[in-house]
Amino acid sequence: MQALPVPDLPEIREGDDIAALVDERIDLRPSDIVAVASTVVSKATGRTADLDDFPADDRARSVAQRLEDATGDEKDPRFAQAVLEESEELLIESPFLLTRTHFGHITVNAGIDRSNVPGHDLLLLPEDPSERAAEIRAGLDVDAPVLVTDTCGRPFRHGQRGVTIGWAGMPASRDWRGEHDRDGRELGVTVQSVVDELAATANLVAGEGAGGTPVVVIRDWDFGEHGGSDELFRDLDGDFVQQALRQWSYED
Amino acid sequence: MQALPVPDLPEIREGDDIAALVDERIDLRPSDIVAVASTVVSKATGRTADLDDFPADDRARSVAQRLEDATGDEKDPRFAQAVLEESEELLIESPFLLTRTHFGHITVNAGIDRSNVPGHDLLLLPEDPSERAAEIRAGLDVDAPVLVTDTCGRPFRHGQRGVTIGWAGMPASRDWRGEHDRDGRELGVTVQSVVDELAATANLVAGEGAGGTPVVVIRDWDFGEHGGSDELFRDLDGDFVQQALRQWSYED
Repeated sequence: MQALPVPDLPEIREGDDIAALVDERIDLRPSDIVAVASTVVSKATGRTADLDDFPADDRARSVAQRLEDATGDEKDPRFAQAVLEESEELLIESPFLLTRTHFGHITVNAGIDRSNVPGHDLLLLPEDPSERAAEIRAGLDVDAPVLVTDTCGRPFRHGQRGVTIGWAGMPASRDWRGEHDRDGRELGVTVQSVVDELAATANLVAGEGAGGTPVVVIRDWDFGEHGGSDELFRDLDGDFVQQALRQWSYED
Repeated sequence: MQALPVPDLPEIREGDDIAALVDERIDLRPSDIVAVASTVVSKATGRTADLDDFPADDRARSVAQRLEDATGDEKDPRFAQAVLEESEELLIESPFLLTRTHFGHITVNAGIDRSNVPGHDLLLLPEDPSERAAEIRAGLDVDAPVLVTDTCGRPFRHGQRGVTIGWAGMPASRDWRGEHDRDGRELGVTVQSVVDELAATANLVAGEGAGGTPVVVIRDWDFGEHGGSDELFRDLDGDFVQQALRQWSYED
C-alpha cells in the first residue's frame, strides 16, 4: 500500500472543481482511494462564514458566559451561536464545547475552524460530507472511492488524528465476523473502521500548513472479500460514553 | 509512504526473537518504522495465561455477577479477576469492563484476548509495551523505530482501529505549534498522534486471521523537522471523558 500526496494544489475557493484539480495532477487508477481534507471541501462548497452571520440568542450568550467563567478567556457569543446552529446536541458545555454535528460526527466546536479561512472568520464543516464525497467521486476520471477527512482529538489519548467524516464508493468498515485464524479459532476483532484508518494514513503524509496538501491518494490497498457496513457514527443509545457525558457536569 | 506487510512469519512462541524473525524476512532501511502487533509481543514474552491462574476474590465475583445481571450471559469470575489484576482502574463496570491498564492504555477487558492463544485460555497485553519495543529495536539490524500496536474500539465511532501502545526510537506525536499556513496564520492543529496514525496504517495491511501478518514496515515516511512529545495516554486529570465515566452508572 502507498500513500501519495497530490502535489501543487492551489488554494481552493468557492466553486472550484476538486475532482478536476485532482485529475489534472495525478493519474488515478480505479483501485485508488482519494482522501480529501474537509477544509477544502468546505471552501469549494462555500461553507465559509463570518461571526456577524450568527447573531447570538439567549442560549448562545449563556453558553459563552459559562465558557468564560470556566476558562477565564473571553468568548464571543456569536461563535457559540455558530456552534449551536451546526450541532445536533452539546455533549460537553464546559470547559469546552463538545458537540454532535447534524450528520453525526462528535468533535469540539462542531468542527468549526477559525484559523484557516482567508477573508472570513469561520470555516464550517461540509453540510453532508458523504454527499460531497459522492459528488467529487462522480467528477473523477476513474471510478475511485472518495473520503472526506477531518482531524480531531479523542478521549483517552493525547493528540489529534485523521478520521473520515464522509465517504462514497466503499463501505465505512470491514467486517471479519465468521472468519477464522490459522488455528481455526473465530476472530476476536470483528468490525474494522477502514475509512478511519485510511484517513489516518492520509493525514500522515498530508502535512499541515505551507508544506501540506489537502488531497492524498491511497494506492494498492484492497478491501478484499469481506462484509462491510456504513455505520460510522455511534448514536446515543449504543454509546455509554455519550450517555455518561450527558449526565456529567464540569466543576472547576 | 509505503506500508509493507512482512510475509511468512511463523506462529510466534515464548522466547522467539521477533527482531531476528523480521530481519530474516525484510531488508530494513534506517528510515523504516516497524509496527509489531501486541499479540506476538505477548506470545514471545510469555504473556499467555490460564483462567486457573486467576482465582477470583470477592471483588472479582461481584464484578462478574454484575456483568451477568446486566447482559444475561454467564461470566467467569476468574476472567474478571484477570482483568482486575491487569488494570489500574475500572472506568466502566457494566455492561462491559472498560479499564485503564497499568501502563495507561484504556481498553475493554484490559486488552485480554481470549481467542488468539494456542494451548492457553488468555493472552495478556505486554507488561511494558514501550520497553518491549525498545528491546525489539535493539535487536534489529538497522536503527529503526519500533511500535507495539493494538486494535480496539473507541467512543463516538463504530469499529476498531489500530493504535500504538508502546514505542521506541521516535516520539509519540508531532507538534506543529508555532508553525504557519501559506497565508501566515498560525496552525489550528497542534499535536498530531503520529504513532496512532502509523498503527492505523499498519492495521490496514496487516489483515486478520489466516491471511494476516503481525508485522508491518512503514517506509519512506518522514517525521520531519518538528517538535515531538511522548505523551500518549491521557490521565484522569486532563480527560473529562474519564471523569464523566467515573461518575456514570449503567442502568438497564
